[in-house]
Amino acid sequence: MDKQGKGATAIGRRRVLQGLAGAAGLGVAAGSAAAPALLSRSEIKSWDVTTDVLVAGSGSAGVSAALEARRAGVEVLLIESLPKLGGSSAMSGGVVYAGGGTALQRALGVEDSAEAMYNFIVSAGTLHPQLDKIQLYCEGSPAHFDWLVAQGVPYQEKMTKAKGLPFGDESLYYSGNELAWPAVDAARPAPRGHVPGVSGMNGGRTLMEALLARLAESGVATRAGVSGRQLVVESDGRIAGMVVQDDAGRFQRIRARRGVVLACGGFIHNREMLRRYAPQLYDCSVPWGNAGDLGAGINMGIAAGAEALRMHQGFAIAPMYPPENVLSGIVVNQFGQRFISEESYHGVLGDAIAFHQQGRAYLITDDDSAYKMHQDNFPLVAESATIGDLAALAGFPQGALQHTVAYYNRFASVGRDPLFHKSHHYLRPLQGPPYRVWDLSVNRAFFPAHTFGGLHTDVDGRVINSFGEAIPGLYAAGRTVAGLPTAPYIASGLSVGDCTFFGRRAGRSVARQEVSA
Amino acid sequence: MDKQGKGATAIGRRRVLQGLAGAAGLGVAAGSAAAPALLSRSEIKSWDVTTDVLVAGSGSAGVSAALEARRAGVEVLLIESLPKLGGSSAMSGGVVYAGGGTALQRALGVEDSAEAMYNFIVSAGTLHPQLDKIQLYCEGSPAHFDWLVAQGVPYQEKMTKAKGLPFGDESLYYSGNELAWPAVDAARPAPRGHVPGVSGMNGGRTLMEALLARLAESGVATRAGVSGRQLVVESDGRIAGMVVQDDAGRFQRIRARRGVVLACGGFIHNREMLRRYAPQLYDCSVPWGNAGDLGAGINMGIAAGAEALRMHQGFAIAPMYPPENVLSGIVVNQFGQRFISEESYHGVLGDAIAFHQQGRAYLITDDDSAYKMHQDNFPLVAESATIGDLAALAGFPQGALQHTVAYYNRFASVGRDPLFHKSHHYLRPLQGPPYRVWDLSVNRAFFPAHTFGGLHTDVDGRVINSFGEAIPGLYAAGRTVAGLPTAPYIASGLSVGDCTFFGRRAGRSVARQEVSA
Repeated sequence: MDKQGKGATAIGRRRVLQGLAGAAGLGVAAGSAAAPALLSRSEIKSWDVTTDVLVAGSGSAGVSAALEARRAGVEVLLIESLPKLGGSSAMSGGVVYAGGGTALQRALGVEDSAEAMYNFIVSAGTLHPQLDKIQLYCEGSPAHFDWLVAQGVPYQEKMTKAKGLPFGDESLYYSGNELAWPAVDAARPAPRGHVPGVSGMNGGRTLMEALLARLAESGVATRAGVSGRQLVVESDGRIAGMVVQDDAGRFQRIRARRGVVLACGGFIHNREMLRRYAPQLYDCSVPWGNAGDLGAGINMGIAAGAEALRMHQGFAIAPMYPPENVLSGIVVNQFGQRFISEESYHGVLGDAIAFHQQGRAYLITDDDSAYKMHQDNFPLVAESATIGDLAALAGFPQGALQHTVAYYNRFASVGRDPLFHKSHHYLRPLQGPPYRVWDLSVNRAFFPAHTFGGLHTDVDGRVINSFGEAIPGLYAAGRTVAGLPTAPYIASGLSVGDCTFFGRRAGRSVARQEVSA
Repeated sequence: MDKQGKGATAIGRRRVLQGLAGAAGLGVAAGSAAAPALLSRSEIKSWDVTTDVLVAGSGSAGVSAALEARRAGVEVLLIESLPKLGGSSAMSGGVVYAGGGTALQRALGVEDSAEAMYNFIVSAGTLHPQLDKIQLYCEGSPAHFDWLVAQGVPYQEKMTKAKGLPFGDESLYYSGNELAWPAVDAARPAPRGHVPGVSGMNGGRTLMEALLARLAESGVATRAGVSGRQLVVESDGRIAGMVVQDDAGRFQRIRARRGVVLACGGFIHNREMLRRYAPQLYDCSVPWGNAGDLGAGINMGIAAGAEALRMHQGFAIAPMYPPENVLSGIVVNQFGQRFISEESYHGVLGDAIAFHQQGRAYLITDDDSAYKMHQDNFPLVAESATIGDLAALAGFPQGALQHTVAYYNRFASVGRDPLFHKSHHYLRPLQGPPYRVWDLSVNRAFFPAHTFGGLHTDVDGRVINSFGEAIPGLYAAGRTVAGLPTAPYIASGLSVGDCTFFGRRAGRSVARQEVSA
């Protein structure tokens, strides 16, 4: 794996240097602070490079798009702003959320249906989502999983019921909030997290190594260290190409006869964009994503007249478990009130804290439910032999935490959680000092965040403008678009799943676009 | 007042019919479903009308912009899509949030400072707001109030301490959340709601009648029943004008030599935009705004490459008071937990419900705190002689409401509210049946909503693109832009205040723009 990974980088690096060194007519007109947001075709005297399809970004969305476009028989050039290909997908868990009876689910005797998956996503996710994308995704999920297998992504016919991304080589698990209330009542649960069957946290790297190996064989030209700067627009509004810049500062004008696919990731590392669009994510302690997540694709798209949707949304996660024993503690807000089932998936808990509890929350444990090993993720705030002292030490409003614990214990002792229906696996009274408070607040805890807002696309990756029409020649996929992952983020694998599924559709779609005159 | 209002309408109506009837070369190229989002200047053979400044929208933002541009000596044409001028401002309470020592505050012996006002807005409002706008607004507030007086807006040197928009002729009141916790601890409170001194709910109409009377004298040409359809862009990116359409379906091409000001309101009546951008507002029972709030200005701006910021935000208000006696009840979420001080301003309470409590909340009253008069705003859910029966009837989780009331009563009986610091005016134990539950949920209660997201502008109303640069010739103001009103909406008057203050700045700014070649 290492060998392949390094290989891909070295190849990418060499290609771009050769490509730019050999190119005539290096541009000087663009890329400065005063560059126009959108370049008119009439400003381009000559193109430096011509291809059918230009894909910007080498994460799972860009690579999936490039592979499918190339297999449809057209010429494809893929650029990546960083020296190494792989994008944020290579940093991720590599989980693909898939269901409705995938080959892996069937091999492991798991029953699932596209409807159950659809119901889960629609009921547990964001208000008023883009239903057509969800429906296609659920219906196409088994075939999409087959495609991933065909690309050489290795899966093991093993499943785990443990919560959280498997450290072993199991390839199927409950990656989301399916078993937590209220989702468990809204849709029939099934394990749908499909993760490469490799031990350790190497899923994303493994997934991308497989896809990049296919890319290397495919005939797609790749150039790393090359960043998109401006889209070029014809006088009739069609996107004609892109001005790019390499690491040495040189510009090139790339013509894309069929179209451009923006797959440049989100904007979690662009602090100014976060402040403007997604202030709750701005405050999270750990911007989580590849260094290229600067919003370039989104901003180029906006400059071309695209709509950008739900730009405030993202994942904001509180990875409180593992260990699972802490789920027998209770999570409270600054007022000492519970607000969620503690067994909720990281993304659902994190969303509740970051977006709905003003960024502040605390885990209260007794001796059994405490973190046993040293950990720096969730700082210890206070420790005491009684809940009353603990509450005073931590500064909760007078009597509030005591009240919450008394109510919780009263029902937990008879196996019930009237408020949030925590399951019997984790439900028992808090009893047995020392009691402790751990900080789950967005700016104190380990609180990774990533952006989900992006360009409006249809199910075929066409970028939609504010008049509801596709911008000719412009496509996008992955976190550059507003896709399946929304806030709350209800399951690991929805993002990479969306990237690969709709990346492929964008690739097939742009390959069918007529060649511009 | 009626006379003037009707007069403005009739004049507006006549003007547009004459104007379009007399125009040569009615367009046919634009406005159909297939019209491009942005029209290239090269597509325009000839202009039907030429002016210096075109203002789209006749609410307080558009009229303030038009007045200031005209007074700077340039030619101004103002169009309004509806038959009657006035926009959503004329439907509003007509409150302008002003402080820092306005003439009215000083006349009434109210102490205030720009800093206290700034601290309130920054601490109580949205996360990471546009600070430069807030600072200018606070510093310029006394002078801006003088300007409103100079336009003939009638204010009375009377103040009220009652909560809510005055029904009498008082012109100064606490229009926001200044006295509720936690705002009261964060900034020195002052009454800053400046409302025309007329009885009844006629503030907005009165304000707009004054401004429209000045408009009629000013030499600004106005045309009602004319809607903006597309911006026209020069090849160098400068906005050259707009294609408009009248009620009879006819098109005209209007050249704006200095620039276009988009002041077309928000998008609360555009259901599709709400679904895409602002799903929480989509669910609120009462879209609150003038029928022209369809997002036309925002969409034309996006088509020209503008950024649109915080498009999910808006006001979502739960106008629970008056009567003030209900503030001695408690507000709880679906889990029977309190989550806010009941005396919070409508916009703050509504934001908490719509955005942070999944749209659901309930008011719990005892006999003294019940609604005494018949009202349909907040449906009665249940009524009982005991809290326990009430909770069961209303379907709260077992024991939860009882627990909340016991805790609340315990401290209220000694004059304290440890959770939300409700003030002594309203704090007392719930005691004395019948107890009642009233529905405050967004889809059951009277729950007006309005949008706050819009185009990114600088303090001079220049529209900013995704590369951080002003789009030449394009200006915007009012709810077409992301301005001072944010979520939570912390005070009545921030929206009309922002419309008039930054509308004026946009008008002065566009008048200074060089004439295009």
